[in-house]
Amino acid sequence: MELLEKKIQEEGIALPGNVLKVDSFLNHQIDPELSLAMGREFARLFREADIDRVLTVEASGIAIGVMAALELNVPLVFARKKKSVLINEPVYSHEVFSFTKKETSEIIVLQKYLPAGENVLIIDDFLANGEAALGMARIVEEAGSKVAGIGIAIEKAFQPGHQRIVDKGYHLETLASIASLVGGKITFTEK
Amino acid sequence: MELLEKKIQEEGIALPGNVLKVDSFLNHQIDPELSLAMGREFARLFREADIDRVLTVEASGIAIGVMAALELNVPLVFARKKKSVLINEPVYSHEVFSFTKKETSEIIVLQKYLPAGENVLIIDDFLANGEAALGMARIVEEAGSKVAGIGIAIEKAFQPGHQRIVDKGYHLETLASIASLVGGKITFTEK
Repeated sequence: MELLEKKIQEEGIALPGNVLKVDSFLNHQIDPELSLAMGREFARLFREADIDRVLTVEASGIAIGVMAALELNVPLVFARKKKSVLINEPVYSHEVFSFTKKETSEIIVLQKYLPAGENVLIIDDFLANGEAALGMARIVEEAGSKVAGIGIAIEKAFQPGHQRIVDKGYHLETLASIASLVGGKITFTEK
Repeated sequence: MELLEKKIQEEGIALPGNVLKVDSFLNHQIDPELSLAMGREFARLFREADIDRVLTVEASGIAIGVMAALELNVPLVFARKKKSVLINEPVYSHEVFSFTKKETSEIIVLQKYLPAGENVLIIDDFLANGEAALGMARIVEEAGSKVAGIGIAIEKAFQPGHQRIVDKGYHLETLASIASLVGGKITFTEK
């Protein structure tokens, strides 16, 4: 997606350790027009999949997820990372390891907001090792629904997440695919 | 806002301890059309205030905040509750006590995403004791900007937050105002 790639080139910062900082428009300050454009693009890419629901995880997935859900005219559910806010009701949960933050967290969804028999679109801002996306996929399947697609704003294609998702047979769409961050230079995957 | 009050009456659950659960459309499952309608209403209510930026706090404020920012054609910034994601850069931060969760957390914003001299609209999903809204207001003023307004989706008018905000002279707008949750019955404030 050209608009997103342009924004990444202009404002993204490649740091040592293969970290790409995009907090000026994606995960701290948010560009609402860009969020809407990304939501529209996801809706277009997965239009055929007859999506019933969008699932994302707090916090950075919410702005894109809500725009995709708006365009698809379905509800959004965002997985929580803290059990305390979801008290006394049955949940689906899955442990997710963040390689960036070097910590394990649990993602949690109330069972009543993931009914069985649906086509669920998983949306997230970043794909690196695929832990969050695959954790959400597992929750969707545990709920008796189908992972109808996984839509990611920015993937680091040189890390294992992409291949892990494709190997499981999921329909993956990414709006920007980073081939390398070596030497502070952001290079996109050839199309 | 009639649409929101209707949704609260239909789906909200009043629990002992003055808790109102609205996780079917506001803070776990999200109704994107309602989020857009709320964003539009905030944009209308604060149109005269010449807003430069919307500030909210993760996670439940983001869906409404991004819609308000979209309508006002300004950026959204969402305060983080964890320092770990904002490394090695100057931040504004403020401790916020949650009476619901009985815990203190810190809300944090990178200084570069709150430039001085702006009119900032603060948006949040809930107003009870006003801790989060007033914490954000303090950060905005510390940044040398003006709190141009505080927009809240649902306030519990029988708790101190409303008065605390009004006493400080801020322009407060709430889309639904709950007068009482006694006996599991949701009563709105008379207009």
